[in-house]
Amino acid sequence: MDNVIEKKDRIVISVDAMGGDHGVSVIVDGLQKASLRHQNLEFLIHGNKNHILEHLEKKPKLHAISTIVNCRTTIEMEEKPSVAIRNGKDSSMWSALAELSNGKANIAVSCGNTGALMAMAMLQLRKAPGINRPAIAVLWPARNSRGFNIVLDAGADIKADADDLLQYALMGVAYARDGFDIQKPKVGLLNVGTEIHKGRNELHEASLNIAANQQSNGFEFVGYLEGSDIPSGKADVIVTDGFTGNVALKTGEGTASLIRELLKESLSQSIASRLGAILSISSLKQLNKKIDPRNVNGGIFLGLNGIVIKSHGGADAIGVAAAINLAHQLEILGFSRKLTSKFNRYS
Amino acid sequence: MDNVIEKKDRIVISVDAMGGDHGVSVIVDGLQKASLRHQNLEFLIHGNKNHILEHLEKKPKLHAISTIVNCRTTIEMEEKPSVAIRNGKDSSMWSALAELSNGKANIAVSCGNTGALMAMAMLQLRKAPGINRPAIAVLWPARNSRGFNIVLDAGADIKADADDLLQYALMGVAYARDGFDIQKPKVGLLNVGTEIHKGRNELHEASLNIAANQQSNGFEFVGYLEGSDIPSGKADVIVTDGFTGNVALKTGEGTASLIRELLKESLSQSIASRLGAILSISSLKQLNKKIDPRNVNGGIFLGLNGIVIKSHGGADAIGVAAAINLAHQLEILGFSRKLTSKFNRYS
Repeated sequence: MDNVIEKKDRIVISVDAMGGDHGVSVIVDGLQKASLRHQNLEFLIHGNKNHILEHLEKKPKLHAISTIVNCRTTIEMEEKPSVAIRNGKDSSMWSALAELSNGKANIAVSCGNTGALMAMAMLQLRKAPGINRPAIAVLWPARNSRGFNIVLDAGADIKADADDLLQYALMGVAYARDGFDIQKPKVGLLNVGTEIHKGRNELHEASLNIAANQQSNGFEFVGYLEGSDIPSGKADVIVTDGFTGNVALKTGEGTASLIRELLKESLSQSIASRLGAILSISSLKQLNKKIDPRNVNGGIFLGLNGIVIKSHGGADAIGVAAAINLAHQLEILGFSRKLTSKFNRYS
Repeated sequence: MDNVIEKKDRIVISVDAMGGDHGVSVIVDGLQKASLRHQNLEFLIHGNKNHILEHLEKKPKLHAISTIVNCRTTIEMEEKPSVAIRNGKDSSMWSALAELSNGKANIAVSCGNTGALMAMAMLQLRKAPGINRPAIAVLWPARNSRGFNIVLDAGADIKADADDLLQYALMGVAYARDGFDIQKPKVGLLNVGTEIHKGRNELHEASLNIAANQQSNGFEFVGYLEGSDIPSGKADVIVTDGFTGNVALKTGEGTASLIRELLKESLSQSIASRLGAILSISSLKQLNKKIDPRNVNGGIFLGLNGIVIKSHGGADAIGVAAAINLAHQLEILGFSRKLTSKFNRYS
């Protein structure tokens, strides 16, 4: 019943329009796509007013549900987080987070510099009670009916000790349950082998701690997983430190794009294979959708007092729309409210 | 001229026949495949004599170039390296390495437990002069004319400091040059971003050390790479610690096999796509060959006084043959002799 009422309510998303690799137009196109799908969205769009207006004026319906917040500067992709915090208070990124922090928006979305976004989010939203290191959770294409698994940390921090890994497990479980309705999530810990003696000391300690928490927190710990298990049905939530998670994520993306390119080349090699490709086109398109990282775009920052979604820097309109769709779903399910109360329970 | 003479010489490969997931028959089938391709191979096959004979007797030509070394025990895949060393002196793995160590074989190959194999190899062959941590180098399918890049460490050790990473770079360069004739290898260091401030401290230190060695050692350091760059043309040699390398490798394999399965499913979905798949079959087979990890099977242990090739535990006959082919190529190029002299120069 809750959901029905909430669906009527408006959901305000605070969007950093300047962050992506492809400029404002792609962001506006993405907002347009998402707004056609969901009736109750409103946008606070942060960035250079003239640039945003130029694209927004062509889309009167989107324009009508959007408010532009003019910002003088943009955080560059290469900017160090410490520098961004010091000099970036008049940036679109800072402004997008400020509207979340002051309660005018439900969720913030940015395609910008991940490190700067996390640093600014920690400063403005503060860590949730009981959380030491916030984490970035990503949705990873997987071989299950849902089509994805949750992996964290995908790069919020370059290290994690045993306690951090336990917190990641608990945050991942909350995300799986309250964001995607997975009632008893299976949790795995990423390692170099599944045997109990494998890997680093902090992993041994973390595995004991996570196992000890499974009953009281309503999840199942499936033990160590290897990289090849990430897209499998063995776990719903895969826990790792941010260095390993980031490398794994990008390695998976690189492998998928290598195969996509090789497939395209192979199918254009001969007349027979070109004809074959035409006959298979709808199946191949479906496949492409399943393995296209744009469709599961949206890393989420967990462990803060508020939900920030980091869209891929290179996201196109489909990718931006996917991030907005994720934001919408999380609000519909009341995820941020539930998550905050969960953290309070853990602490 | 050197190569011509060596081609006439026999190359003796010491094979642990008991290690793989699929038993002796797959190993013998792999040796058969490789022996049909190369005329100058001889095998020392270590394991249960009756099991080996059972399969070898069906292949008289292979039998004629093989000597069986009967071994009473097998190292299990889950065995801890420390236990394997203590109790495994009468195992096929130990025996295969002993024949390399005593000079009766040119190269040793095993599909068995990686940790045990490395521990035994270190004990029997000893580290090469100047080497602190040996590494496992793997060939990674890549988008270049060669079809692969070299990645190390893929899991010999779970940690590496800045000095170790420099040694990995130098070993990788020697492998690229003397094993694959890449005259001026490009070397990259795996990190979570390409910006100079990204990642852990040991990576910052290692990047300075590697850069300082590029001129004197005839390679080009291209700086930090991300996971998505591993299959790219940006580098020939990608350096990382064994934990990260192992997770990345298995993540890449998992992604590739997910996509292969989804592709197969997609193409059998409708009559049109099934017909399309038939028309495209030769192109798809070619693609499969390019992305099939079996065709680049064979991790090599670098940094020891002798060359050990670790074949994938799950390798089938094609995979085993690929590992033997790699061993053959390395001997033809005189890799192990050159490599040992290289290490002496570094030390």
